[in-house]
This record gives sequence, structure tokens and C-alpha cells, in this order.
Amino acid sequence: MSPLDVLMKRLAKVPGLGPRSARRAVLYLLKRRESAMQPLIDALARAKDEVKECSVCGNLGGCDPCEICQDPGRDRSQICVVEDVADLWALERSDAYRGLYHVLGGTLSALDGIKPEDLPIAALVERVRIGEVKEVILALNVTVEGQATAHYVAESLVPTGVLVSKLAHGVPVGGELDYLDDGTLTAALKARRKAG
Amino acid sequence: MSPLDVLMKRLAKVPGLGPRSARRAVLYLLKRRESAMQPLIDALARAKDEVKECSVCGNLGGCDPCEICQDPGRDRSQICVVEDVADLWALERSDAYRGLYHVLGGTLSALDGIKPEDLPIAALVERVRIGEVKEVILALNVTVEGQATAHYVAESLVPTGVLVSKLAHGVPVGGELDYLDDGTLTAALKARRKAG
Repeated sequence: MSPLDVLMKRLAKVPGLGPRSARRAVLYLLKRRESAMQPLIDALARAKDEVKECSVCGNLGGCDPCEICQDPGRDRSQICVVEDVADLWALERSDAYRGLYHVLGGTLSALDGIKPEDLPIAALVERVRIGEVKEVILALNVTVEGQATAHYVAESLVPTGVLVSKLAHGVPVGGELDYLDDGTLTAALKARRKAG
Repeated sequence: MSPLDVLMKRLAKVPGLGPRSARRAVLYLLKRRESAMQPLIDALARAKDEVKECSVCGNLGGCDPCEICQDPGRDRSQICVVEDVADLWALERSDAYRGLYHVLGGTLSALDGIKPEDLPIAALVERVRIGEVKEVILALNVTVEGQATAHYVAESLVPTGVLVSKLAHGVPVGGELDYLDDGTLTAALKARRKAG
């Protein structure tokens, strides 16, 4: 396959780019080899080598533990549990939350064979057990899998006696956090309730 | 700026990817560093170094002259003039044309200060003058700039005596009349042919 075809095939696999956008992207880049293509190559290579997954919360960033876990200004009595790093970023953009996070990296799913031990749920319980955590906020997507996972996490936390809350409804059913506007996220966070 | 922010900013500039798609793309790639991210880096670097612009027709490819210009099976009596390499690719996908091409790489534009000498129009006239070309097909976009450019190219070719044609206007195959603009309908009506 020619270098052009290889690149178009690779780009077409990136979410958000289909075959048509991939072709346009390739032409855009090849017309700007030094001003756009090389900087993109450098940015990809640098991110690939330098971006670390936080061993505490699962966030992505330049250091481990991540900037949020290391920030002395964050409220260490709250942990917000999210499915994905994109959801963490969405909450950070809303600027309505100043606690810590715990990224599950997925949901329980019988279909995909994802069992509780495949997600860092035991690690969350351990963080609550040893730490100064007073509240765990479940901010999982309002999908069947997300809610089943929220239920399982809440059950797992019962022995610790920690307060478990969840985002208020106001998050549209069937919606994903990453697609929500900041105002809705802020309102949902403020109106969170005790789980169960 | 962190490697993550740099990459998201770079990716968000690629046409077809806005800030939100760029975030999703970054997460997708960082979860697949060896299986998707490194191959994409390699494909970009290889395309940047190896893809050449054909010195005859302006097409992009692995060699110069390009595969089409070198192909002995192509009809050398026809040259199809297109604005952009993307248009050349669209015509190739249609599989309806077996002649050669001439990529202008833009259109005349008073607004952007693009004058005839900024486009390879003289080179096209020269190709017609020295070659075995019998017909030049103008396949420029149906925009004000595209049509002004088509008119200028046609005028430039008058001294060579070559036959200059342009793509037919009409109802797109699969198109519904109700969704067409008046200009297209008028053109299709004027160019009507005997049915059957």
C-alpha cells in the first residue's frame, strides 16, 4: 500500500474521522508539512512517551500521581467516580467540583465480559478505607451498564460507612457526560443525593 | 503547556476534528499507544517524507511523475482540469474517466489575491501545445470562483485549438427534485434531452 493509502486508512480509524474527513485531513496536512504535519507528529510522539496514567485515580497527565491528586488545594474528603477520563475532563471544565476522582475505565458488562475485578473498584474501597474520604460521588453515565456499575460500587462501599451520593437526575437519560453542557453538569452536581 | 494539551490543540486544527472530537481521539489513541498511536505516527512521518507532488499534473503520490501520468493504459488525448487533489480522487473513485489530469491547486480569487500566474495555467497550455491532447475537460466546482477560473482557462486554451468541454449540470443521480436549488433545476431543464 502507498504511504498515502496507509495514512488515510490509519486516520480513518480515529473516532470522529471517517474516510471522507480522513482524505481532507491528509490533503490539509500534506499542504502544510512543516507548519502542521511535523508539529502534529511531534505532539503525538511526545504525548505517547510522556503522558502517564495516574496510579491513584486513573487520570491522564504529565505526572504520576496526576496534577489533581497532587494539588493541595483539592478537597481530599470527596472522591468522584467516573467511567472515563473524558468524563473527568467534562467535570473539570464545569469548574463545579474541587474534590478528587476515581476513573473506572469502563463499566460492568455481562456482554463484554467485564467483571468487578476488571475495574479498580477494590482500589476505590481501599482509598476510602485508608484515607480521609467522607463522601464518594457516583458520576457514572445514565445507561443500564453505568447504573448497574454505580449500584455495585455503592454496595461495595457500604462496609466503609462512607456517604455515597450520585448526580441528580437532570442528566438526560441515555446521555453521556462528555456531551453535556457545563450548566447541566453544575446543576446535577449541586443536586446530588444519597445513593440507594 | 502539557503534552496532552499540545496534542489536543494540534489535533483540533485538523479539518473534520473540533475540540470535542480531538479529546475523544486523544483518549482513543492513548489507550492504544502501540496498536494505533505508533502506527499513526509512523504513517504520518512516512507520508510526510515520501509523498510527492507530481511535477506534470499536481497529483499526490509515491512517485513523480505520478502513477496516473506514468500509466500506459491511460488515454493521453484527454486532460481533466480539477481544483484540488480531492476532486481528482473523487473522479478516480467514480471509475468513469481514463484520461490524464491537471490539478490547479486553487481558483482565481480577487479576495485572496490569487492571480492567473499563481495557478499552473501556463503549464496546462504548454502540456496541450506539445502533447497529443485532443480534449480538455473542465471539472471545476460550480462556485463563482470555480466558474471564473474555468472561463479563464478556456480562454487561455483558445490559441491551441484544443476542444474544451465542461461537466454537465443537472439533477444528481439519486437526488430528489424537491431538495435541489433553483440554479440546478434551471440548468437541468435547459439541458434536457430526448427520453428513452
